[in-house]
Amino acid sequence: MQPMNHQLMGYDRAITMFSPDGRLLQVEYAKKTVKQGSTAIGIACKEGIILCTDKRIVDKLVVPESVEKIFQIDDHIAATASGILSDARVLVERAQLKAQQHKVTYDSPIDTLSVVKDIANLKQLCTQSGGLRPFGVSMLIAGIDHSTPRLYETDPTGIFFQYKAAAIGEAETEVEEILLKEHREDMSIDEAIKLAVKALVTTIKDDLSIERIDCVFIETTKKEFTRVNQEKLNKILAEAKSEARKKK
Amino acid sequence: MQPMNHQLMGYDRAITMFSPDGRLLQVEYAKKTVKQGSTAIGIACKEGIILCTDKRIVDKLVVPESVEKIFQIDDHIAATASGILSDARVLVERAQLKAQQHKVTYDSPIDTLSVVKDIANLKQLCTQSGGLRPFGVSMLIAGIDHSTPRLYETDPTGIFFQYKAAAIGEAETEVEEILLKEHREDMSIDEAIKLAVKALVTTIKDDLSIERIDCVFIETTKKEFTRVNQEKLNKILAEAKSEARKKK
Amino acid sequence: MQPMNHQLMGYDRAITMFSPDGRLLQVEYAKKTVKQGSTAIGIACKEGIILCTDKRIVDKLVVPESVEKIFQIDDHIAATASGILSDARVLVERAQLKAQQHKVTYDSPIDTLSVVKDIANLKQLCTQSGGLRPFGVSMLIAGIDHSTPRLYETDPTGIFFQYKAAAIGEAETEVEEILLKEHREDMSIDEAIKLAVKALVTTIKDDLSIERIDCVFIETTKKEFTRVNQEKLNKILAEAKSEARKKK
Amino acid sequence: MQPMNHQLMGYDRAITMFSPDGRLLQVEYAKKTVKQGSTAIGIACKEGIILCTDKRIVDKLVVPESVEKIFQIDDHIAATASGILSDARVLVERAQLKAQQHKVTYDSPIDTLSVVKDIANLKQLCTQSGGLRPFGVSMLIAGIDHSTPRLYETDPTGIFFQYKAAAIGEAETEVEEILLKEHREDMSIDEAIKLAVKALVTTIKDDLSIERIDCVFIETTKKEFTRVNQEKLNKILAEAKSEARKKK
Amino acid sequence: MQPMNHQLMGYDRAITMFSPDGRLLQVEYAKKTVKQGSTAIGIACKEGIILCTDKRIVDKLVVPESVEKIFQIDDHIAATASGILSDARVLVERAQLKAQQHKVTYDSPIDTLSVVKDIANLKQLCTQSGGLRPFGVSMLIAGIDHSTPRLYETDPTGIFFQYKAAAIGEAETEVEEILLKEHREDMSIDEAIKLAVKALVTTIKDDLSIERIDCVFIETTKKEFTRVNQEKLNKILAEAKSEARKKK
Amino acid sequence: MQPMNHQLMGYDRAITMFSPDGRLLQVEYAKKTVKQGSTAIGIACKEGIILCTDKRIVDKLVVPESVEKIFQIDDHIAATASGILSDARVLVERAQLKAQQHKVTYDSPIDTLSVVKDIANLKQLCTQSGGLRPFGVSMLIAGIDHSTPRLYETDPTGIFFQYKAAAIGEAETEVEEILLKEHREDMSIDEAIKLAVKALVTTIKDDLSIERIDCVFIETTKKEFTRVNQEKLNKILAEAKSEARKKK
Amino acid sequence: MQPMNHQLMGYDRAITMFSPDGRLLQVEYAKKTVKQGSTAIGIACKEGIILCTDKRIVDKLVVPESVEKIFQIDDHIAATASGILSDARVLVERAQLKAQQHKVTYDSPIDTLSVVKDIANLKQLCTQSGGLRPFGVSMLIAGIDHSTPRLYETDPTGIFFQYKAAAIGEAETEVEEILLKEHREDMSIDEAIKLAVKALVTTIKDDLSIERIDCVFIETTKKEFTRVNQEKLNKILAEAKSEARKKK
Repeated sequence: MQPMNHQLMGYDRAITMFSPDGRLLQVEYAKKTVKQGSTAIGIACKEGIILCTDKRIVDKLVVPESVEKIFQIDDHIAATASGILSDARVLVERAQLKAQQHKVTYDSPIDTLSVVKDIANLKQLCTQSGGLRPFGVSMLIAGIDHSTPRLYETDPTGIFFQYKAAAIGEAETEVEEILLKEHREDMSIDEAIKLAVKALVTTIKDDLSIERIDCVFIETTKKEFTRVNQEKLNKILAEAKSEARKKK
Repeated sequence: MQPMNHQLMGYDRAITMFSPDGRLLQVEYAKKTVKQGSTAIGIACKEGIILCTDKRIVDKLVVPESVEKIFQIDDHIAATASGILSDARVLVERAQLKAQQHKVTYDSPIDTLSVVKDIANLKQLCTQSGGLRPFGVSMLIAGIDHSTPRLYETDPTGIFFQYKAAAIGEAETEVEEILLKEHREDMSIDEAIKLAVKALVTTIKDDLSIERIDCVFIETTKKEFTRVNQEKLNKILAEAKSEARKKK
Repeated sequence: MQPMNHQLMGYDRAITMFSPDGRLLQVEYAKKTVKQGSTAIGIACKEGIILCTDKRIVDKLVVPESVEKIFQIDDHIAATASGILSDARVLVERAQLKAQQHKVTYDSPIDTLSVVKDIANLKQLCTQSGGLRPFGVSMLIAGIDHSTPRLYETDPTGIFFQYKAAAIGEAETEVEEILLKEHREDMSIDEAIKLAVKALVTTIKDDLSIERIDCVFIETTKKEFTRVNQEKLNKILAEAKSEARKKK
Repeated sequence: MQPMNHQLMGYDRAITMFSPDGRLLQVEYAKKTVKQGSTAIGIACKEGIILCTDKRIVDKLVVPESVEKIFQIDDHIAATASGILSDARVLVERAQLKAQQHKVTYDSPIDTLSVVKDIANLKQLCTQSGGLRPFGVSMLIAGIDHSTPRLYETDPTGIFFQYKAAAIGEAETEVEEILLKEHREDMSIDEAIKLAVKALVTTIKDDLSIERIDCVFIETTKKEFTRVNQEKLNKILAEAKSEARKKK
Repeated sequence: MQPMNHQLMGYDRAITMFSPDGRLLQVEYAKKTVKQGSTAIGIACKEGIILCTDKRIVDKLVVPESVEKIFQIDDHIAATASGILSDARVLVERAQLKAQQHKVTYDSPIDTLSVVKDIANLKQLCTQSGGLRPFGVSMLIAGIDHSTPRLYETDPTGIFFQYKAAAIGEAETEVEEILLKEHREDMSIDEAIKLAVKALVTTIKDDLSIERIDCVFIETTKKEFTRVNQEKLNKILAEAKSEARKKK
Repeated sequence: MQPMNHQLMGYDRAITMFSPDGRLLQVEYAKKTVKQGSTAIGIACKEGIILCTDKRIVDKLVVPESVEKIFQIDDHIAATASGILSDARVLVERAQLKAQQHKVTYDSPIDTLSVVKDIANLKQLCTQSGGLRPFGVSMLIAGIDHSTPRLYETDPTGIFFQYKAAAIGEAETEVEEILLKEHREDMSIDEAIKLAVKALVTTIKDDLSIERIDCVFIETTKKEFTRVNQEKLNKILAEAKSEARKKK
Repeated sequence: MQPMNHQLMGYDRAITMFSPDGRLLQVEYAKKTVKQGSTAIGIACKEGIILCTDKRIVDKLVVPESVEKIFQIDDHIAATASGILSDARVLVERAQLKAQQHKVTYDSPIDTLSVVKDIANLKQLCTQSGGLRPFGVSMLIAGIDHSTPRLYETDPTGIFFQYKAAAIGEAETEVEEILLKEHREDMSIDEAIKLAVKALVTTIKDDLSIERIDCVFIETTKKEFTRVNQEKLNKILAEAKSEARKKK
């Protein structure tokens, strides 16, 4: 049976419903929203973990430094998202609150997986209960748990996996190919940042200005959410662009 | 797939639902409401922040000074809106209450971003829960936080960005072109007001009488919501109109 | 796109829904109900404020003096309505309760704008929440706040404006033309009543008997809801009719 | 636009919805139910107030004296109804409870208007809230307030008016013509009863047996709900019938 | 307009909805369920009151004496039903509970009318609230109040009347004709039982075995719910059958 | 009117709705589910009561002794079901809880009818309330009350009857014919078991292996839920099969 | 009647609804989701119980050891699932919580059947209540209760059975054939693991790398959830593959 049939017969017009071949169409459509979102990349390595995203700012009147696409959940946990930004914010604020409550209650930092599970459970609920739509957002959540860097991806279904390196958004497929070839677990944080920027340059090309990049790292030892400074990012971007030009 | 198909197949007739290409059509229609609303302009500069709106009063029996399209959220925060006015009022009153509660609870003024996030979260909720429609309104929210002027725009989706200068409503595109060309961060509040009035004159033309303009500024130093007095506004309008005539 | 399309495609059959061009059709239909309602006129002047309405009693068995279309909200506030009368009553009783509660709680009279905002907020809610229809009623609310007469109009959307003089109901457009030409802010209450009665005569013509008119004034100094006595009203009506006849 | 269109397009299949010309069709259909109900008549005069109804008993096995179509709300208040009888009972029992509560709380009888407003408000609610249908019943409510007889009629919309004399049900129009011609405010209670019975005879003709008539009066002085005794009613009916025959 | 139209246009597919001619179709369909139910007969006379029903047992494996179609509500009140048996049971259990509560609270037996009104009100509610269907059952409720026998019938609408004698179910019309001809208020309980059995024989004919009859009487003096013993019933049935045969 | 019409017109697509001929179609469909369920048989006799069911295990990997299709509600009460097994489990667990609560509260065993009524009432509710579907299950409930064996059957409607012997599920009609011919109230428990097994053999034939049979008896004197041991069952099955072969 | 008809007539577009032939189509569709899930195998033997699953990881960037498809419910209970993974997680977390609460409350381990019943009841609820969809997941739950190994399977309906050996997911049928032939109750845990791996190799073939297998055993004596170490698994997989190659 072809997708067109499903549409004509209305299986995709109620959230909490299976199509005759066992699919949840509303959830599949939500994933398409994610595929149209801006690209975000996460890389785990021994030294720590990095997130690097395309802010995709096209309006020049926007204050670029105000646009943060990478959110601090806790000192040791960062998150980014592709898809409906306001959906992402709801999930991020929930995670921030949960992390804070954990710290107050147990006097110890929350582990990354607990944050991921909480977000994933809320997402699952929105695929099963009537009167709600699925969240139109995939997220990369990166953290250091007891000196181990961890990177998770969760999609609109509420499924999550741990990754060595991952990409979400419009350039997901292209970036993952690059990551697969060039990611090494023993790379340094600096090398990971370079790899991520290179992947963005490859997919966005010349449109990628410094204002569009948001990049954050957390070192395994320090466990501190740190934004990469502009100077350094500028240098890395310049190198990546010149390298890309040579290839042609 | 073309929009017409979506309509014929009913994807736009339930709020909490994705279309097969991952869009939330009801939210997109709500944005059209905003595009039909009267124009509102916000400009941030070092000296402070200004909001300037077309009240679009056409009924001569209305008491023009009673029509305020720029609302005081707190001493240091102002807001304006385009779209369904009664929707805007609900959000403004909520923001006023939140600001007041913050003052009473913490004995310090609320920061602008907290107000923006609260409004944006309510808007997001109305795009995800059944039985509610999205808010048919975009807002400009301007405030001074610790001597820094900030200007935010939030749309029916619940997304928000910080802007150097921004416009919403029917003349959004034309005004933003003007702002992009002529906005400078080191302009004075007086220059910002002139720029905003000029932009309104350019788009509304001779129909723009003094009664249709509402204009408010907050100085970085004083942090006081202040309406521009009629005399001054009259002078600026006259200049802008004469300038516009010369151009022809 | 033409209205017919909207109807065929069902955008007007669920309240909390936008049409593809960004309209809330159920709210627009509710406004049509108002346009079929009986005419009501409000005039503000220095001496105070008047409301004058066509009771539109056609059934001769009705006790005419029992039919009040102008409601006392508080000593200093009056209201009238066009559209679905039972909808209006719900709003009037809510306003009366709110005014009473204010008096008891703060030991001072409520200001007119607070009453207006409360009614408008309830109306807005009924345009956004599923399971409720919009209120099919527009209202004129007139009051004296600290020696200043104020006249507000609120429509089914929940929007409100302050007017110098206003009309609602079937003859809205004709009456507003008359008001625009002949209203002066320095007219006396007596002159305002005459203007209102004249406007009713012009639109209803000979069908306008004394039994059909309800007229109330509140003087700026006394702040007392007062019904115009029959004798006076009779005289004014006679004059207005004879004047109207001369014009022909 | 013709009613047929409304039906074809479904505007009459959801209660809380306006048709494009601003009508609430479900409420209009409920009024048709009333027009098919048995006739009920109320007459106010100086001496007091009377209600007279056709019980429309056709089943000879029914115990006629058990069928009361005129209900005692309180000592000084009576009510009757046309339309869906079980709907009427719900409203009558609510009114009886409200009257009783008032007596207990304030140690004084409730005034008729309070009873009427309470019923009318519930009716209005059922025209605005989803998940409920309008009440399919019109009511005549008659009472003596501080020596003044009052007669109210309320319809499915929740609108009410005070009448000198009124009729509801299938013969409404014919009876109201008779009332308009022959009602005088200074008629005695006996004359009022005769007028009501005559009106029933005129419309129901020979089918009107004594068992079908329910008739109650409340005297202004005594304020006591009193059923007219069978003997008297029989005599009046005989006279009315003979008079009717002469006219032919 | 013909019923077929209503069906085609969907007026009968939502409970709380009027058709354009003011009917509640779901309630009318519920009445059809009753018309397909087994026949039940009630007769009031001076000596007391009887209920007699066809149990309509066709399955020979059913324990006939376990099937009671006449329920004891209280010592002095009995009830029977036609239509959906499980619906009837819900109403009977509610009535039994109400009677018990009354006895405990007031230390006196409940009157029959209170029981009837309570059942009728619940039935009415189910014709007005969304999310519930009407009760598909008519009931005969018979009781002795202060030495007066009373027999009530209530239908799916929630309407009720007091009867001298009444029938519900498939043979309603035929039985009522017999009752009309032969019922006398001064008949003895024995004569009433004979009349009821005769009516059942006339309509069910030879299929009416002793196992299918349930018959209960309450004497005005004793006020005790009593089942007619099998021996007596057998004799009456035999007589009735032989009489019926002679008529042919 | 034919069933097909009902389907085309949608009367069977909302649970709480009557069709124009007064039927509840969703309940009728639920009964079809029962007719496709595995066969279960109950027989009451003086010595006690037996239940005997086809477990219908076809998957050889299932642990046959773990499959109990006859459930112990209390020491003296057993139950079995045909239709949706998970629906049955919900009802069985509810009954077990109710029996336990009764024992704790009153220190005496619950009677079988109370258990039956509780299950039947929940079933009725699911045929009247929106948002729930009818239970797709019929049950046989067997118990000993004060030395009297009782066997009840309840269907998806919530109707129940007491039986001498009964069958539910796919072979209902065939088995009931056998029961009707061969059941005697004075048969022993052993004879009842043999009769039930014989009926299963007749309808399931050679497919009926010992693993598929679940058989329980409760003696009137001991009031103890007892499973028939495999050895005995094996012998009875062998006899029944050989007898069946002879008949051919 | 053919399935196509059901679809055309909409019986499969509301969860809580029977089709005319007594089926719950939404539940049947949910079962199809399970049939598309990755294969999971459970085997019970005297020595204990094993679960073995295909993790079906295709993305090489996923951290394979982080993907656990077999979940620890308690020390002595393990579970795995096929179908929608996020649905499974909700059920697993519920089971873990229930097990923990049992330990705290009764100071003894929960038995496996209690865990199974709780999951099955929640699944049943989601097939009967409106506003929820069925869980799109089948589960294998394995535990040791008082030295007895038990293996249960529960499907989307909420039905469960105890198995000697069972498979769910895409290769269910093929694997069950293998299990039926080769399973013996007296096999050792090692033999059971080999049998399960062999079955996976047979169905997945060369695609089955060591990273895709998750395998857990619980010994009857130790009652400890234990993951099979990679070394051992590697060896078993190598053997199974070589054996498979020989067969060709």
